[in-house]
Amino acid sequence: MDFTHSDRSLDFQRKVKRFIDEHLAAVDSDYQSWVHANNHARFQHWQPPPYVAELKREAKEQGLWNLFLPDPELGQGLSTTEYAPLAEAMGHCLLAPEVFNCNAPDSGNMEVLYHFGTPEQQQRWLKPLLAAEIRSVFCMTEPAVASSDATNIEASIAVDGEDLVLNGRKWWTTGLGHPQAEVAIFMGISDADAPRHQRHSMVLVPLDTPGVKIERMLSVLGDYDPPYGHGEVVFNDVRVPKDHLICGLGQGFAIAQGRLGPGRIHHCMRAIGASERALSLMIERGSQRIAFGKPLLKLGGNADIVADLRMAIDQARLLTQYAAWRIDNGGARQAMKEISAIKVVAPNVLEKVVDAAIQIFGAEGVSDQTPLASLLGMARALRLADGPDAVHRALVGRLEIKEQTQ
Amino acid sequence: MDFTHSDRSLDFQRKVKRFIDEHLAAVDSDYQSWVHANNHARFQHWQPPPYVAELKREAKEQGLWNLFLPDPELGQGLSTTEYAPLAEAMGHCLLAPEVFNCNAPDSGNMEVLYHFGTPEQQQRWLKPLLAAEIRSVFCMTEPAVASSDATNIEASIAVDGEDLVLNGRKWWTTGLGHPQAEVAIFMGISDADAPRHQRHSMVLVPLDTPGVKIERMLSVLGDYDPPYGHGEVVFNDVRVPKDHLICGLGQGFAIAQGRLGPGRIHHCMRAIGASERALSLMIERGSQRIAFGKPLLKLGGNADIVADLRMAIDQARLLTQYAAWRIDNGGARQAMKEISAIKVVAPNVLEKVVDAAIQIFGAEGVSDQTPLASLLGMARALRLADGPDAVHRALVGRLEIKEQTQ
Amino acid sequence: MDFTHSDRSLDFQRKVKRFIDEHLAAVDSDYQSWVHANNHARFQHWQPPPYVAELKREAKEQGLWNLFLPDPELGQGLSTTEYAPLAEAMGHCLLAPEVFNCNAPDSGNMEVLYHFGTPEQQQRWLKPLLAAEIRSVFCMTEPAVASSDATNIEASIAVDGEDLVLNGRKWWTTGLGHPQAEVAIFMGISDADAPRHQRHSMVLVPLDTPGVKIERMLSVLGDYDPPYGHGEVVFNDVRVPKDHLICGLGQGFAIAQGRLGPGRIHHCMRAIGASERALSLMIERGSQRIAFGKPLLKLGGNADIVADLRMAIDQARLLTQYAAWRIDNGGARQAMKEISAIKVVAPNVLEKVVDAAIQIFGAEGVSDQTPLASLLGMARALRLADGPDAVHRALVGRLEIKEQTQ
Amino acid sequence: MDFTHSDRSLDFQRKVKRFIDEHLAAVDSDYQSWVHANNHARFQHWQPPPYVAELKREAKEQGLWNLFLPDPELGQGLSTTEYAPLAEAMGHCLLAPEVFNCNAPDSGNMEVLYHFGTPEQQQRWLKPLLAAEIRSVFCMTEPAVASSDATNIEASIAVDGEDLVLNGRKWWTTGLGHPQAEVAIFMGISDADAPRHQRHSMVLVPLDTPGVKIERMLSVLGDYDPPYGHGEVVFNDVRVPKDHLICGLGQGFAIAQGRLGPGRIHHCMRAIGASERALSLMIERGSQRIAFGKPLLKLGGNADIVADLRMAIDQARLLTQYAAWRIDNGGARQAMKEISAIKVVAPNVLEKVVDAAIQIFGAEGVSDQTPLASLLGMARALRLADGPDAVHRALVGRLEIKEQTQ
Repeated sequence: MDFTHSDRSLDFQRKVKRFIDEHLAAVDSDYQSWVHANNHARFQHWQPPPYVAELKREAKEQGLWNLFLPDPELGQGLSTTEYAPLAEAMGHCLLAPEVFNCNAPDSGNMEVLYHFGTPEQQQRWLKPLLAAEIRSVFCMTEPAVASSDATNIEASIAVDGEDLVLNGRKWWTTGLGHPQAEVAIFMGISDADAPRHQRHSMVLVPLDTPGVKIERMLSVLGDYDPPYGHGEVVFNDVRVPKDHLICGLGQGFAIAQGRLGPGRIHHCMRAIGASERALSLMIERGSQRIAFGKPLLKLGGNADIVADLRMAIDQARLLTQYAAWRIDNGGARQAMKEISAIKVVAPNVLEKVVDAAIQIFGAEGVSDQTPLASLLGMARALRLADGPDAVHRALVGRLEIKEQTQ
Repeated sequence: MDFTHSDRSLDFQRKVKRFIDEHLAAVDSDYQSWVHANNHARFQHWQPPPYVAELKREAKEQGLWNLFLPDPELGQGLSTTEYAPLAEAMGHCLLAPEVFNCNAPDSGNMEVLYHFGTPEQQQRWLKPLLAAEIRSVFCMTEPAVASSDATNIEASIAVDGEDLVLNGRKWWTTGLGHPQAEVAIFMGISDADAPRHQRHSMVLVPLDTPGVKIERMLSVLGDYDPPYGHGEVVFNDVRVPKDHLICGLGQGFAIAQGRLGPGRIHHCMRAIGASERALSLMIERGSQRIAFGKPLLKLGGNADIVADLRMAIDQARLLTQYAAWRIDNGGARQAMKEISAIKVVAPNVLEKVVDAAIQIFGAEGVSDQTPLASLLGMARALRLADGPDAVHRALVGRLEIKEQTQ
Repeated sequence: MDFTHSDRSLDFQRKVKRFIDEHLAAVDSDYQSWVHANNHARFQHWQPPPYVAELKREAKEQGLWNLFLPDPELGQGLSTTEYAPLAEAMGHCLLAPEVFNCNAPDSGNMEVLYHFGTPEQQQRWLKPLLAAEIRSVFCMTEPAVASSDATNIEASIAVDGEDLVLNGRKWWTTGLGHPQAEVAIFMGISDADAPRHQRHSMVLVPLDTPGVKIERMLSVLGDYDPPYGHGEVVFNDVRVPKDHLICGLGQGFAIAQGRLGPGRIHHCMRAIGASERALSLMIERGSQRIAFGKPLLKLGGNADIVADLRMAIDQARLLTQYAAWRIDNGGARQAMKEISAIKVVAPNVLEKVVDAAIQIFGAEGVSDQTPLASLLGMARALRLADGPDAVHRALVGRLEIKEQTQ
Repeated sequence: MDFTHSDRSLDFQRKVKRFIDEHLAAVDSDYQSWVHANNHARFQHWQPPPYVAELKREAKEQGLWNLFLPDPELGQGLSTTEYAPLAEAMGHCLLAPEVFNCNAPDSGNMEVLYHFGTPEQQQRWLKPLLAAEIRSVFCMTEPAVASSDATNIEASIAVDGEDLVLNGRKWWTTGLGHPQAEVAIFMGISDADAPRHQRHSMVLVPLDTPGVKIERMLSVLGDYDPPYGHGEVVFNDVRVPKDHLICGLGQGFAIAQGRLGPGRIHHCMRAIGASERALSLMIERGSQRIAFGKPLLKLGGNADIVADLRMAIDQARLLTQYAAWRIDNGGARQAMKEISAIKVVAPNVLEKVVDAAIQIFGAEGVSDQTPLASLLGMARALRLADGPDAVHRALVGRLEIKEQTQ
């Protein structure tokens, strides 16, 4: 057993942290103001601040680019275990994932195209995504059904000659408000009579295809998350050629499973980075602000709360790193229990840390004067995204009981 | 011991609930849309929807007016115990407190004027407040210091001949964005050398007095709370006549104590009403939405969560009613421990219920499609408003230890 | 709404507390030593300390006797609401319930005989129980099945001519080790084909009937609870006359329901009294013991913990009193949700308080040097007795959902 | 980063588990009966069951001996990281630590003698301890003071010519009831005027030295822990030669610090092993016992509870392994925060798991029919032993705040 990171990972950790310190810290408060000024549902007007493109160019030049992708040519050849601390570092800064071209859902979509795309699909969409020339979205969740049970999905994919015809309504499609969003991965039922996990397929859909209509953006605790947004979109007899199908009919679930493993590591490590940031803010404020003659951290149980948070964060990080290592050494399938476990643990830890930090900041903590309100929204959304706590907790319980009773 | 409400209270409960059902339910979704459409910081443009004034007129005509005020002439002569269930009923509906002229901070300010105002002050400000012709704000919290320790307040009140000269910066002044807001109660230091709890005074300040400058509105988890708002305001050499002083120099703390007792009952009972609403939404949704072949409430521990919430709400309600009864039978001063206890308990229960309801709604629960995101903001803010959890918990602990060791 | 106790209840509260202070406090440490010296499974040697009978005589003389029984002749005519604070007072002292002839399971058995017994049964068993001349036990739980689901009970009651023939194995029969235990109420299946809640009957069985064999006593966290004990007992073709049947064949469940309502109030109020005792011990110790230069209660979050416990106890008490009042005003049947709620809440509060107190006492707290280890066992057992937390929580959830969705 | 254990550790894991399965499982229920039959305070009669010595001989022959000691000659040369999973394996079985000569407090005392003992002290006491020919105890905690603050210790060590004269009263001296207990490490004040952490010394005291008087054994939740026991012992002018001093006057704290690091890893890993055992018992019982027509684990939130426990155990294990690795790579001193963190986390996880398992077992779970009551006592005691939760939590908080604010 060895908790030391590889030299390669350590080297990238240093570089990523330095880049964040040198380049992102400088624009952080400007970016936060920009976000608040644009926090409205009129996504048609959203444009990222001009320096974002510049920062991406700089990161790319420094080789801090597509770090999430294990491929040594297209990415940097980092394992999930090696990438995990980089995702944590990016979690300290809202803008970081995009600047390093490691942001969801593009990273997950790139993985899908990398693992399952045809050469033509890779040429047309993976290549520009890797170069950050376009953006992509993932259309899975639907308003009318409980998406926690993915078999509830009702959108349809019909084969009609050389075409696929898509119908359905999707929402919580993250990134749909971005002006560069060009292509969606659409999940729908292609054969309602097939066995439960072979009914669904995934199809690539250019967003300018006739019949695709973005209706509106949804907010998370009042946050529209500009310039990305979470959109509601209707697919009305949307027709694409058969070669837009990913990996074959009925493969939707299999692809989704493969997509989600590393993606959950990324989400959770970012949540841990965000937790560390919130804890630091809490300690900084709690050491300086005085009440009843003492710094807040010397009052009542506040230092105990810091201790509990430190223990919770460290445990969540170790569990996530362990899950990452299990993915690298055996594959996502055999690490399902660990992957669901971190999906419960990490977002809840983040929420707990942010909540405690807010109490130390007082009302300022719920305003837009600190990053805490955004982080609370991030935590709250993460407890639902990719399956709510209850679904993952149930899976952990079911697998544990199965293992012990077989 | 008798848990039956008085006939008078029961009668008002029936009337208030009927009014809410008949009049407010009809505009509820319209009002929520209005709030979202106006959820921005540009308070200068805020105007309440036109039907609000109409609803208030109707409520006033029905005698459902100023119910919070124990005075039988100006209010309805209800005790705190009798009013508590009415506050709970109003907690089911965001618009209700205003419609019955029972909303914070006006209700608290009216109480201050009722108990401590001079006849002239009452004539000029209490009378129009009771008639809902004007609105008021309460300027206490300051950005530069930990307001959880009220002795930290730094704003100043200087006597200059026949005038009082006020200086300071206040924020989280609720209601400051409303077009009808006309007068503030301003708390500041009038004698920095006096004993700790006799340093502060309260002064009435018309908001159009020269030197009063409203700088901006602050958001609570992205919610600007239009058309009321939480404002930041600067007092720069603001000069008002001496007769604007409430109750005498150095009386600020004494007034604040008196003001907060019943006010906390109101807040907490509204939180309990809001908890009931969230629980009902959760049960409704959880009974109808299907996943894995069952309604959500039949899955895993969801019904257990409903049970835990029911037990938590019922206990919080009983504790709040007990605190109300203690205020009525002995006064707020001897009920300090109970009042602080409910200030910890009720907002946390609300937060817990809303959180659980959101999990059942899924992502829709954090959007603006349900009242849950607003209720979460309400809960989160209540855990800070009028003193954060930590301050009240510490007070309960200190009083308990003192009682048992004397 | 009025939280004042009736004059009659207040009068008895004063008397009971005075009796405990004057008579029981004097023997308390002696009694605790006696218990520890006799804490072994050889129940055949158990004899209560001699002063117990003397104390009972004294309590009886003072009219502090059978207070739990609502009958004005046989008891003191107190309602459940009026008796509740007396049960709380008795919870402060391990010996108290017996001294006032209010201890389980005798109190519950007396209620059964009072409500459902024939005149002959009352003459033979209720009368001596009311006079504390004999003791009784309640044989329900069985080792081979999950007794949380009472329909699992497998013991059998067969009608054979003029006799009933009983077979089965029971355990956790409280009080079975006491030398005065003379009669059992035995629950078993009398008609396996009847509808689910009409299969069981209750029969009175003198413990010296041939075929009744007490096999051993069971411990609760190492505590054999002398001189009462929790026994395992076999009924092997035990034959009693038909007139030992209570209330008719198939009435077992109906009787059990009626028995448990007030009994749970008693248990829970005693748990609340025990919680108050543990909190007082915690505060006393925490104020006196010094570490790092301060009394323990001034360190870290300890005072916050006191506050949380105070709030939890007060809420649990109010909920229990409310349940008592619901029983008095409408009957146990319509108060089922509240009764199950307190059965979850009160034992868990007791456990939490005792746990916190132990932390303040350090290792001494888990030894036999303080009452805390006993109280922890009491709390732990109460979370299982009369149905584990899970069963009551599930019932609260089911009733709540049913009420809201009908 | 690599979560694979070393080949050497894996090899010992296999051997230790096999030994436990083959040799200890066979006597487990006999041993548990033996413990219950001897669960009384009359330690003078305690004798371990005869097969214990035999099992130790067998373990020693197989080289499964002194595994905890990093020395390759005297132990097996295992690092703390490599030993950790062996400690976990031993935690599955109450008898295991002793059988492998890895039980507290002997293991900690051997470490003290190994690191700080003179050649003579090692010859006289370390050698026979390593051979399990004698046993030892550690006298630190005192009844009159809060031992959570070790500077409170009041026992005294006076230099008198060539002798040291010891006075004081100690309790919770684990192992003092064992017939083979021969020597104590005694901690006391040797210079009350020295700086706070240089006042205390440690001295070796043969237990048959005149003036040493064992007064009684103390119970943990009713468990006297035969044949080891937790004793109260008086040192009354006990005189030993100066060469019984360990490491020099004033070195008591320094030795204690060094002693506790690896020891806490051992304790915590055993707690994790015990947690796994309790979880397995819970799952086994919950899969087989039926209520309301289903196995208990299919009812309500029970499977969710299993999931939460799995996540908690896995996180606690990873944190403990990380702390072990930090000790191996940098020393116990720089791993203080992690060592205190696991001291809070692991015992609380064990308590939580055991509590949940008991709920599934019902009343049987608190009796002596399963190992659960013993494990609950173990967990409860561990939350106090070597410093209560509060002390370690406070240390974590203080170090965290210090690191972030320097």
